Amino acid sequence: MPGNSFGELFRITTWGESHGGGVGVVVDGCPPRLPLTVEDIQPDLERRRPGQSRITTQRQEADTCEILSGTFQGLTLGTPISIWVRNTDARPEAYSEMAEMFRPSHADFAYQAKYGVRNWEGGGRSSARETIGRVAGAAVAKVMFHDVLPKLRVVAYVKSIHSIEATVDPLSATSKQVESNIVRCPDAKVAKKMIECIEAARASGDSVGGVIECAIQNVPAGLGEPVFDRFEADLAKGMLSLPATKGFEIGSGFAGTVLKGSEHNDAFRMKSGRVVTPTNRSGGVLGGITSAQPIIFRVAFKATATIAREQETVSVAMKNAKLKARGRHDPCVLPRAVPLVEAMSWLVLADHWLRWKAQCL
Amino acid sequence: MPGNSFGELFRITTWGESHGGGVGVVVDGCPPRLPLTVEDIQPDLERRRPGQSRITTQRQEADTCEILSGTFQGLTLGTPISIWVRNTDARPEAYSEMAEMFRPSHADFAYQAKYGVRNWEGGGRSSARETIGRVAGAAVAKVMFHDVLPKLRVVAYVKSIHSIEATVDPLSATSKQVESNIVRCPDAKVAKKMIECIEAARASGDSVGGVIECAIQNVPAGLGEPVFDRFEADLAKGMLSLPATKGFEIGSGFAGTVLKGSEHNDAFRMKSGRVVTPTNRSGGVLGGITSAQPIIFRVAFKATATIAREQETVSVAMKNAKLKARGRHDPCVLPRAVPLVEAMSWLVLADHWLRWKAQCL
Amino acid sequence: MPGNSFGELFRITTWGESHGGGVGVVVDGCPPRLPLTVEDIQPDLERRRPGQSRITTQRQEADTCEILSGTFQGLTLGTPISIWVRNTDARPEAYSEMAEMFRPSHADFAYQAKYGVRNWEGGGRSSARETIGRVAGAAVAKVMFHDVLPKLRVVAYVKSIHSIEATVDPLSATSKQVESNIVRCPDAKVAKKMIECIEAARASGDSVGGVIECAIQNVPAGLGEPVFDRFEADLAKGMLSLPATKGFEIGSGFAGTVLKGSEHNDAFRMKSGRVVTPTNRSGGVLGGITSAQPIIFRVAFKATATIAREQETVSVAMKNAKLKARGRHDPCVLPRAVPLVEAMSWLVLADHWLRWKAQCL
Amino acid sequence: MPGNSFGELFRITTWGESHGGGVGVVVDGCPPRLPLTVEDIQPDLERRRPGQSRITTQRQEADTCEILSGTFQGLTLGTPISIWVRNTDARPEAYSEMAEMFRPSHADFAYQAKYGVRNWEGGGRSSARETIGRVAGAAVAKVMFHDVLPKLRVVAYVKSIHSIEATVDPLSATSKQVESNIVRCPDAKVAKKMIECIEAARASGDSVGGVIECAIQNVPAGLGEPVFDRFEADLAKGMLSLPATKGFEIGSGFAGTVLKGSEHNDAFRMKSGRVVTPTNRSGGVLGGITSAQPIIFRVAFKATATIAREQETVSVAMKNAKLKARGRHDPCVLPRAVPLVEAMSWLVLADHWLRWKAQCL
Repeated sequence: MPGNSFGELFRITTWGESHGGGVGVVVDGCPPRLPLTVEDIQPDLERRRPGQSRITTQRQEADTCEILSGTFQGLTLGTPISIWVRNTDARPEAYSEMAEMFRPSHADFAYQAKYGVRNWEGGGRSSARETIGRVAGAAVAKVMFHDVLPKLRVVAYVKSIHSIEATVDPLSATSKQVESNIVRCPDAKVAKKMIECIEAARASGDSVGGVIECAIQNVPAGLGEPVFDRFEADLAKGMLSLPATKGFEIGSGFAGTVLKGSEHNDAFRMKSGRVVTPTNRSGGVLGGITSAQPIIFRVAFKATATIAREQETVSVAMKNAKLKARGRHDPCVLPRAVPLVEAMSWLVLADHWLRWKAQCL
Repeated sequence: MPGNSFGELFRITTWGESHGGGVGVVVDGCPPRLPLTVEDIQPDLERRRPGQSRITTQRQEADTCEILSGTFQGLTLGTPISIWVRNTDARPEAYSEMAEMFRPSHADFAYQAKYGVRNWEGGGRSSARETIGRVAGAAVAKVMFHDVLPKLRVVAYVKSIHSIEATVDPLSATSKQVESNIVRCPDAKVAKKMIECIEAARASGDSVGGVIECAIQNVPAGLGEPVFDRFEADLAKGMLSLPATKGFEIGSGFAGTVLKGSEHNDAFRMKSGRVVTPTNRSGGVLGGITSAQPIIFRVAFKATATIAREQETVSVAMKNAKLKARGRHDPCVLPRAVPLVEAMSWLVLADHWLRWKAQCL
Repeated sequence: MPGNSFGELFRITTWGESHGGGVGVVVDGCPPRLPLTVEDIQPDLERRRPGQSRITTQRQEADTCEILSGTFQGLTLGTPISIWVRNTDARPEAYSEMAEMFRPSHADFAYQAKYGVRNWEGGGRSSARETIGRVAGAAVAKVMFHDVLPKLRVVAYVKSIHSIEATVDPLSATSKQVESNIVRCPDAKVAKKMIECIEAARASGDSVGGVIECAIQNVPAGLGEPVFDRFEADLAKGMLSLPATKGFEIGSGFAGTVLKGSEHNDAFRMKSGRVVTPTNRSGGVLGGITSAQPIIFRVAFKATATIAREQETVSVAMKNAKLKARGRHDPCVLPRAVPLVEAMSWLVLADHWLRWKAQCL
Repeated sequence: MPGNSFGELFRITTWGESHGGGVGVVVDGCPPRLPLTVEDIQPDLERRRPGQSRITTQRQEADTCEILSGTFQGLTLGTPISIWVRNTDARPEAYSEMAEMFRPSHADFAYQAKYGVRNWEGGGRSSARETIGRVAGAAVAKVMFHDVLPKLRVVAYVKSIHSIEATVDPLSATSKQVESNIVRCPDAKVAKKMIECIEAARASGDSVGGVIECAIQNVPAGLGEPVFDRFEADLAKGMLSLPATKGFEIGSGFAGTVLKGSEHNDAFRMKSGRVVTPTNRSGGVLGGITSAQPIIFRVAFKATATIAREQETVSVAMKNAKLKARGRHDPCVLPRAVPLVEAMSWLVLADHWLRWKAQCL
């Protein structure tokens, strides 16, 4: 299949460019009879939308979604759910130089190389705007779990911005804490420094990156399809499909490579009649299958490629050139990427939940 | 689809348990008229097979493959290529205690939780033996590129074992250097220490992990399917689908998160009529599409879970217990995982190559 | 994957109920740089739309489509093309009794049995309105062939209505002839009788069925993927996925089962340097692969289920009941199904064209 | 995906040429803990195997299968089940002229056109031998239903050979009746004539075709995935993917096109608390979804293409030529196709059963 769908059974297909009629998603495979209205979707879109704070892009989009199909009298029908958001604050004139030049480390060049054409009035499909469809689709996934796994939790947060790292216990961090500041870091003190760092980057026409950490709790044992569609493999794919990502690690990750087997193994123990592991270096997966322990992972995001400084580049006409980008860009994508990491997690969970039901229930 | 297939157009489906009739692969979608015999496949299987050196498991398997279909008079037919290897040195008796107990940090527990049954005479599908099918499938992929992209190169090597890190230039490391020592690290001096480290681990009934780095060179611009099947997303999925992996990073990776945009961006420059980037923090991909720069990535492998020391665990009967595993196990998976990292790379390349031909040629 | 997508590489995903916000399609996998505007799509939608003549439903829908994504300055981008049509003349009040009762031989009952919920304000997804997305998607497919296979032709027409059968040479029938009368039958004399037959059925509160025949000409040899995705297998699936279809046959079809091998075989002959078969009982396919001979097939459509007569049925409350449907319905689906048969043909052609390019080019 | 897999969740991938190492199947997605041994598979292979009677090909193959993976101690593991049969009685020398010439109406020509190469020592993938994998896969599907739908029945039989048509009540025909004669027609008197007809065809170096009818009973309401993966659409695809098929019809089929809506509609009635339709012109499906009424369909098979008479054809060297085929061929494929029609039915049922469980349970 072409590359704009995600999930085998709970499947989203996203469409839309940053500059064009709008962006949207078709959710296919959603179970019927779930209560679903725009109120279930809009709050997550708010967390993602531009212009929400002083450390995000100042593009103003309400990102008000409309459900065009798949529900009737407030219930899902089991048919495709089409959700879309109209683009309203596109300013293509700010991109006129992009018609002639490639932004360094941006997708412009690769899209041109691959397709021989591109929508240069913005980032096209590589824009963060594409992720609206993911967030909307994930909101539907979340509704699906309301009754069947009411305790399932996905909480992501900013773990580090540039070299500023927060101290957070993944298992006790709450969404409320995450949403209590504009950088979305539950460590309030460090959050302040992170905000300053982002503001400083913007002030100097620069940008910064960082790491997002995410914990999935109360997931049952058994999700994940060996050998290729391992839970962590699909999670890695989902995360690396987000713009600006450069790495993924689960459990002990790269740091765990310096532990010996005797240090790394998580002993199994019985506790109140359930199998638990007092340690969790495995990060909640064993052999590609969830183990009922919390799933903990981290995603690396590079600094935004589009910056306000003059940079060396080449033109579409294949000449060396200089470019100083205009347009409104996030000086740091991480605050707005927190809901994206959660969204991809919900989508992986929903898909593997249905796959597990199909084969093993 | 179920989880034992990889690739949309160049698709492998692997089958087989470590203890059972054998293991194999069906390669579907391979172009016709390619010269293919077992001689194209066997060398890569040799690099993967157990018992190849003193730092791998001592299970003795010749891993001699047979092509059962899909070729005629030495040429591929365009029909499914079925390749298999018979299991010959299985010793289920060494696993008898696995029938009763779960190995810590091993897939035993999760398979039992998911399927309610498992082949406890070895690792079943979670065994490294499953990867034979991947290596065989990748050997076919490699043949496909012989004529169409003769300069395409994939070279992986051990970058670190435990805390011992090699100094290697990814762009100049050769397969010959990699194969010149049993740990598969092109830095000969450090390789020696790595081997000692692995031997020490084995001697103490323990195991070690590490990092494998891989460089793909001379790949054309344009491979990768935004927005979900980005090249690096599929690469991440492929790598995380390998046993014992805990992380993936491309280009600057996690370390790159402390760089500012102005430091991280790779300037485009014209060189001999081609667009190049003197730096390569992007790691060869932009917006999910290859940029014609070298693709550089790293994969984290944890220490082998099965160790010879006594460990705390629980029994199938849900009681706390102690386990000291027998069986023949790798004290470190990395030397044998080098061909696996290369194999998954070839499979991702082959699939995206055909996808690119379909849509953009 | 869920059931609302068609095609592996040229893939459409349709969405929308007959009564709801609208209906639409996402076309993924379309090659880039094709000239595409709504003018390429609207004419086919006109042929499909309700209210176009006195023998179709009188629901008035302009079915004016909008392209929301995937094009830029009149060219396809290689990204998903989202096309939609807003519902404007829905009259849910005409369906109020459907909330309580199941129409005989209609999908109402089965949707309720499967999903436990249904949009009873019209036919929901089983409505002919769903096919708008298919027609729009096929219009894009048609554009794809403009340059690469300019002589490729798909011409469908009404072969029979009830027991009235036309005499048509599939190879010489033209679209112009087909469109020259409202029943879409190139045999002008018989067409008149067909129209009378449909009008008589409507007048008596009844409906009629018939057969559509279709010829695909100038298709190259080599399309179709043995063994499951044979060209005719995918064609059969596409046709049987259309509402009200009950049968599919290709070439000699059911009638050919009374021919002996010596009578049925199409001898190969050389003609002007090309291989031809003077006869074409195979219908243009051999072993699931196109042979470069014309592809000829027929599709059986039953009479419309929703009729204005009183019928015996059961209620949602599981009681015997009587129903006399209101609402505006086609007394015969065939005139409007002609563009649908062509649409599914174009979609199968497009998908297999790209698949062939991927593997065999 | 390439064309050698069938099913989304219960997925088979077949491999193997008629002349080569063997033929086989990988079944992926099968639920775990089902009792499965070769004894569940072999009987269906016996019904399919060549040389079983005087009216089939005289190629002698025991077709003894081996399960290579996916089971342990007699239970399915939930992992891929690999099953294969070795080719033993291949006689490539009988095909030597096929290297030079294309058999009329046979797949030879199309395979050559598509792939530019073919295994001319027999029919390659277009041989009936490929269907071994389907039958083996279907036997696994059948086991899956043992406990969950114990009353589910699939009975196919020969409805007509050439112009000889049997009188059979699809709902009361039993497997025992079908197996009571070598032509597999439950109408014993007519069966005799059919056998004579086939023998006469063989004697004259000719071949005959016919129609197979099939009834699926006790299927629950709700299987089938609108709008493209309708139950009958997938059934049609499955049947048209069988060698030598030219048509498919369900319920009233082509004959039903001369019925008016008032004549064709199946009234719903309550009977013992269940919704039934005293008539069944719909053939057990409504809107693409099973209605709990029996599913009745027919498949048209043409006469075998390979006959012993001299025929006009062209050579690989593109010259007119004459060919009189040697080799051992079925004078009529229908007796051996009965288990194939049943096999494809089981595969469609299994796949849609799992899909229904995933979304709607």
